[in-house]
Amino acid sequence: MNAAREKAYDDDRASINLLGDLATLSRVKMLIDEKKKLNPKYLIVVGIGGSNLGTIAVQEAILGRQYNQLKTKIKVLYADTVDSDLIQNIISIVEPELQKGENILINGISKSGGTTETIANFEVLIDLLKKYKKDYEKYVVVTTDENSKFWSLAKEKGFSLLKIPKKVGGRYSVFSPVGLFPLGLLGIDIEELLKGAKLIRDQCLNIDSWKNPAALSASLIYLHAKQKKNIHDLFLFSIDLESIGKWYRQLMGESIGKEYNIEYKQVFNGITPTVSIGSTDLHSMAQLYLGGPYDKFTSFVSIEKNNSSIILPNYQKYSRLVKGMQGIKMSKIMNAIYVGVKTAFRKGKRPFIEIVLPDKSPSSIGQLLQLKMMEMMYLGFLLKVNPFDQPNVESYKIETRKILEGEKN
Amino acid sequence: MNAAREKAYDDDRASINLLGDLATLSRVKMLIDEKKKLNPKYLIVVGIGGSNLGTIAVQEAILGRQYNQLKTKIKVLYADTVDSDLIQNIISIVEPELQKGENILINGISKSGGTTETIANFEVLIDLLKKYKKDYEKYVVVTTDENSKFWSLAKEKGFSLLKIPKKVGGRYSVFSPVGLFPLGLLGIDIEELLKGAKLIRDQCLNIDSWKNPAALSASLIYLHAKQKKNIHDLFLFSIDLESIGKWYRQLMGESIGKEYNIEYKQVFNGITPTVSIGSTDLHSMAQLYLGGPYDKFTSFVSIEKNNSSIILPNYQKYSRLVKGMQGIKMSKIMNAIYVGVKTAFRKGKRPFIEIVLPDKSPSSIGQLLQLKMMEMMYLGFLLKVNPFDQPNVESYKIETRKILEGEKN
Repeated sequence: MNAAREKAYDDDRASINLLGDLATLSRVKMLIDEKKKLNPKYLIVVGIGGSNLGTIAVQEAILGRQYNQLKTKIKVLYADTVDSDLIQNIISIVEPELQKGENILINGISKSGGTTETIANFEVLIDLLKKYKKDYEKYVVVTTDENSKFWSLAKEKGFSLLKIPKKVGGRYSVFSPVGLFPLGLLGIDIEELLKGAKLIRDQCLNIDSWKNPAALSASLIYLHAKQKKNIHDLFLFSIDLESIGKWYRQLMGESIGKEYNIEYKQVFNGITPTVSIGSTDLHSMAQLYLGGPYDKFTSFVSIEKNNSSIILPNYQKYSRLVKGMQGIKMSKIMNAIYVGVKTAFRKGKRPFIEIVLPDKSPSSIGQLLQLKMMEMMYLGFLLKVNPFDQPNVESYKIETRKILEGEKN
Repeated sequence: MNAAREKAYDDDRASINLLGDLATLSRVKMLIDEKKKLNPKYLIVVGIGGSNLGTIAVQEAILGRQYNQLKTKIKVLYADTVDSDLIQNIISIVEPELQKGENILINGISKSGGTTETIANFEVLIDLLKKYKKDYEKYVVVTTDENSKFWSLAKEKGFSLLKIPKKVGGRYSVFSPVGLFPLGLLGIDIEELLKGAKLIRDQCLNIDSWKNPAALSASLIYLHAKQKKNIHDLFLFSIDLESIGKWYRQLMGESIGKEYNIEYKQVFNGITPTVSIGSTDLHSMAQLYLGGPYDKFTSFVSIEKNNSSIILPNYQKYSRLVKGMQGIKMSKIMNAIYVGVKTAFRKGKRPFIEIVLPDKSPSSIGQLLQLKMMEMMYLGFLLKVNPFDQPNVESYKIETRKILEGEKN
């Protein structure tokens, strides 16, 4: 890809050049060091869609979904939608800390600088912060396009600023300051994350498609879509990866779901991304996947080595209930289920590919996300749609603006 | 429906009779009172699929997704799949409490009594409990079919027991002791929950289809499925309802996804249930929903009145970023977005129905779940499939058992 060779940000595919942007990385790391000195108890990420899905995905994959309930230094909350109960709960969680004189950080993220939900939640949380901190500006970081209206407001107010390279769209921005700042602040090794992403990026630029995992994966999804498999299930055998599935929903939904193709022909193109979790969803969706219509193509993702290892006790009496589990590693049970599912899929002629990650390290997770972003660019190419825009989203936003701007309290 | 009139449990549709089962309700309430006296800090629900999806759905809808992070008396953890990192995290959260001499409760739930994941996790957690409590039996409740192997083991060990009526299948069991015990223990008014369910049940038994919301909803889903809309999206405009979506995935996936119909004809029938959250997923899936293929039918669910009300501050400078929001209620913004989406769906000829709940009270949530369960029974009838079995699930379980029983450590 030429975009990679040019190492610049003037192409829609610019996101693949985030991985070597040392200037941005050093700016992010500097700001992380600066804000860590405030010893914050909570980081509140205020953003929606491309502004928080990648961060949640990486945070949960590496630190776990129960991260906030474990003993951790800096906890994290996500304010995305304008659901008053969500925002009230966030306030109920952080306000007691502020009352005790503790600190919190607010990272407001909006590429355009005018995202309704983000600006609304940002205002409410700034209002809270101001009640407890005279010098509240130093607890706020704004991540946005340089020279957006949010950028200039932040400058006026004296908030810290991080910029998103112009051509890097929301769903491709996890390795920009959008993701790097909050992830690094939470203690994730962002250099390892980028290193993993860079490693697979180079493989995914191979012009020999057979040696290019992103092109291969895209081709298989494409060929199955042509055979009326209009659903793509990302079936993750690791509960901590669920939010990677949600991140991928945006990536596939927005990149491939298109009314018009690149030749301006009305095509109503799209593959619906779904997310399943193994073994949990075997107890809800397996009946449909094995007995239902042949309208799906599945990508399994499994983890070779979890962070922890649990061995079942040797309770012989329980072997009456399920045989073969006494004293064995829990991972062997999960593996037996996974192999069982693949065998059943094969016997039922349900098509799938599999991705096996060695572990949930920053490097492995970085590889998975970068692979998927490049897969989507290739898939857009094969389907002749532009994987970088999202024109139809405007239609509901126009209606919403009409209502809001005509609204009286 | 005759099943309702007979008020018995000898029919597959028996779940609709759970709502008037006062004997079971009083047994559950008695056990809740008994276990509350132990002053538990945590309840661990050990179950998967039909054994925990309903409980999570109701708990999060009524108590909120961030329940454990709020100041609450009894926190709740769910051990479902055999993911060692999940179980290790649960241990890391509860073990410090046990070390301090605090109490925890374990509720092991398996209808058949032989669910691999549930028995494995149950054994591991019993092992933990035994380390700290000599009289560990009294902290354990087992919910299962009467006379399953799990039932007899629990009896032998002296665990408390709750039975699931035989004909009530997992995905229809939320109003049986499967859901009622944990939900009641967490302080949810289970009588109100049942009252709401009963209220809508009676409407959903109306033989006049136009006055029967379950039959109407089923008919619309059916008619759209016949027009190749093979995806049903439950689009919930309330983040706390996400797990109701996950519960519904099982309900629809297992009930309707069928290789054979009731005439033993191979049909590979099925509608794929997906879940979207408003406004969050507008920033990931709206492009596909509005620009992509016409392969979906959408059921919107919205809440008229949230538990809390937040008013945006009157920051005039921020009106440069988004107009029309200063000093207004947050719920007005969400409503403007919801109305905007419905208008865009209408203009784009994307078919939908909507369900409006007055609030997230136990009565309203009970109504929604009961409506959906009866909708699924009618949908099975229309599609000529049995909505109560899940025969294809066996295929992967057989493979898994082969591996486990041949397994050496």
